[in-house]
Amino acid sequence: MNVVLSRDSQVQAMEHTIANTEKYFGQFCSLLASYTRKTARLRDKADQLVKQLIDFANTENPELRATLRNFAEDLAKVQDYRQAEVERLEAKVVSPLKLYGAQIKQTQADIKKCKRVQNKEIKQLEKLEKLRQRSPSDRQMIISFLETSAQRASVDTNRTTRHLAETVAAFQEQKLKDLGRIFSDFVTIEMVFHAKAVEVYSSAFQTLENYDLERDLQDFRAKMHGVFGHGEAQRLTDTSSSLSVPWPLASQSTMRSPRGGEESEADSVEEIPLEDLGGQRQGCRD
Amino acid sequence: MNVVLSRDSQVQAMEHTIANTEKYFGQFCSLLASYTRKTARLRDKADQLVKQLIDFANTENPELRATLRNFAEDLAKVQDYRQAEVERLEAKVVSPLKLYGAQIKQTQADIKKCKRVQNKEIKQLEKLEKLRQRSPSDRQMIISFLETSAQRASVDTNRTTRHLAETVAAFQEQKLKDLGRIFSDFVTIEMVFHAKAVEVYSSAFQTLENYDLERDLQDFRAKMHGVFGHGEAQRLTDTSSSLSVPWPLASQSTMRSPRGGEESEADSVEEIPLEDLGGQRQGCRD
Repeated sequence: MNVVLSRDSQVQAMEHTIANTEKYFGQFCSLLASYTRKTARLRDKADQLVKQLIDFANTENPELRATLRNFAEDLAKVQDYRQAEVERLEAKVVSPLKLYGAQIKQTQADIKKCKRVQNKEIKQLEKLEKLRQRSPSDRQMIISFLETSAQRASVDTNRTTRHLAETVAAFQEQKLKDLGRIFSDFVTIEMVFHAKAVEVYSSAFQTLENYDLERDLQDFRAKMHGVFGHGEAQRLTDTSSSLSVPWPLASQSTMRSPRGGEESEADSVEEIPLEDLGGQRQGCRD
Repeated sequence: MNVVLSRDSQVQAMEHTIANTEKYFGQFCSLLASYTRKTARLRDKADQLVKQLIDFANTENPELRATLRNFAEDLAKVQDYRQAEVERLEAKVVSPLKLYGAQIKQTQADIKKCKRVQNKEIKQLEKLEKLRQRSPSDRQMIISFLETSAQRASVDTNRTTRHLAETVAAFQEQKLKDLGRIFSDFVTIEMVFHAKAVEVYSSAFQTLENYDLERDLQDFRAKMHGVFGHGEAQRLTDTSSSLSVPWPLASQSTMRSPRGGEESEADSVEEIPLEDLGGQRQGCRD
C-alpha cells in the first residue's frame, strides 16, 4: 500500500466529509430558517384574525360578543405560544446551524494547509525520480541527498495529516453531537408548541360549544319585532298623523326606544359608519 | 312613533347587519384562506427538509443513517397530518365562508327591492303633502283620493318590509349558526392536527434519543485510524518503493480496502461528486 496515495485519499475523504457537512448543514439551516419565517407569518395571519374577531365581536349581540372575545383570546394565546416557538427555533436551531459556517471554513483552511504540505512532498518525490532517471552515473550520491530531503517532507506531511485527522475526527464528533442536539431541540420546541396549542384549543372549543345561539336570536327577534310589530300596530292610526312630519326624514333615534335597556348594544352597532363598510370590504381571494 | 321612519330605520339596520356580515365574513374568509395557504407553505418547507434529511442520511454512517431516516419519516408524517389539516380547512372553513358571498348578494338584492317599494310610498306621501298645502280649497277631495293611493303603497311597503324582516332574521340565524360551526370546525381541525403532531414528535424524540453516537464515532475513528495507522507503520519501508509508481496518482481504490465489509457506505459517500457540493451549497439567509 502506498502511503502517499493513502494520505491523498484520506485528505480527499476529509474534504468530502467537510464539504458534505457544509452542503447539508447549509441546507438544513436555510430550510429551518425558512420554516421559522413561515411559522412567523402564520402567527401574523392568525394575529390579524384575532383583531378582526374582536372588531366583529364589538358589533354583535352580547352573547356572541362574549363568545367571540373569549375565542379570540384563546386564538391569541396560541399565537403567543407560536411566537415563543419562533424565538426558540431561532435561538436553538437556526443560530447553531448558522455558526457551523465559520467552523466549516476553519476546517477547510486546515485541509488546504495540509494539501500544500502534501504537494511539497509530491514535488520532492517527482524531482528525485526525474534526477534518478536522467543521471544514472551520479545516482547514489543524488539519491542519498534527495532522500533526506524527501524524508523531511514526508515527516512534515505525516505530522500535518495526523493533526488534520484529529481535527476532522473532533469536527465529526462535534457534528454528530450538534446534529442530535439541534434536531432534538427542534422536536422539543415543536412538541411543546403543539401540546400548548391542543390545550388552548380545547378551551376554545368549550367556549364555542357554550355559545347560547338562542339568546342572541331572541335578542335579535325582539329588536326586529319590537320595531316592526310596534309600527304595524300603529300603522292605521299613524298614517295620517305622519303626514305632518316634514321631509326629509329626521333622526333615527326613534328606532332605539323599543329596546329599553339595551342602549349600549345599539351604540356599538352605530359606531361603525355605513360608508366604511364598502371601502374596507375584502373579497375572498383564492 | 312614525311608522315610515321606523321602517326606514329598520331597513337601515338590516342593511347594516348585512354589510357588517359582508365586511367581516369577507375578512375572515380572506384571512383564513391566507392562514391555510401559509400552513401549506410550512408543509412544503418541512417536506423539503425531509428530502434533505434522507439525502444526508444516505451519506452518513449506518447508525446516524437509520436515526435520520426514522426522524425524517416522522417529520413526513407530521406533514401528512398538516396536509390533512390544509384540506380540511379548505373544505370546512374557507369554502363555507366563500359561499357567504352569494348569500349576502341575494339578501342585499332583497333589501334594494324593499327600498324601492319604500321610496314609492315616500313619494306618494310627499305628493300628498305638497298638494294639500297648494290646494287648501279642494283639500278634502284630493286628500281622500291620495290617501287611498298612499294606503295602497303603505300596504305594499309593509308586506315587503315584513318579508324582508323575515329574510334578515333567517339570515341572522343562519349566520350565527354557521359562524359557530365554522369556528368550531376550525378549532377541531387545528386541535386534531396539533394532537397528532404531539404524538408523532414524541416518537421522533425517542428516535433521536436512541441514537448511539458512540457507535458511529467508533466507526469513523476505525476508518480514519485504519487508513492513517496502516500508512504510518509502512512509512519508512514504503517511501522508496513508492518511487517506482508513475505520477499522476492512480485510482483511490486503496482507500476502501481497510474498511472490509463496509463497502456500501463508502459507495454511498462516493456517489456524490465533489464538484456538485459547491454548486448546490446554499447559504443560510436570514
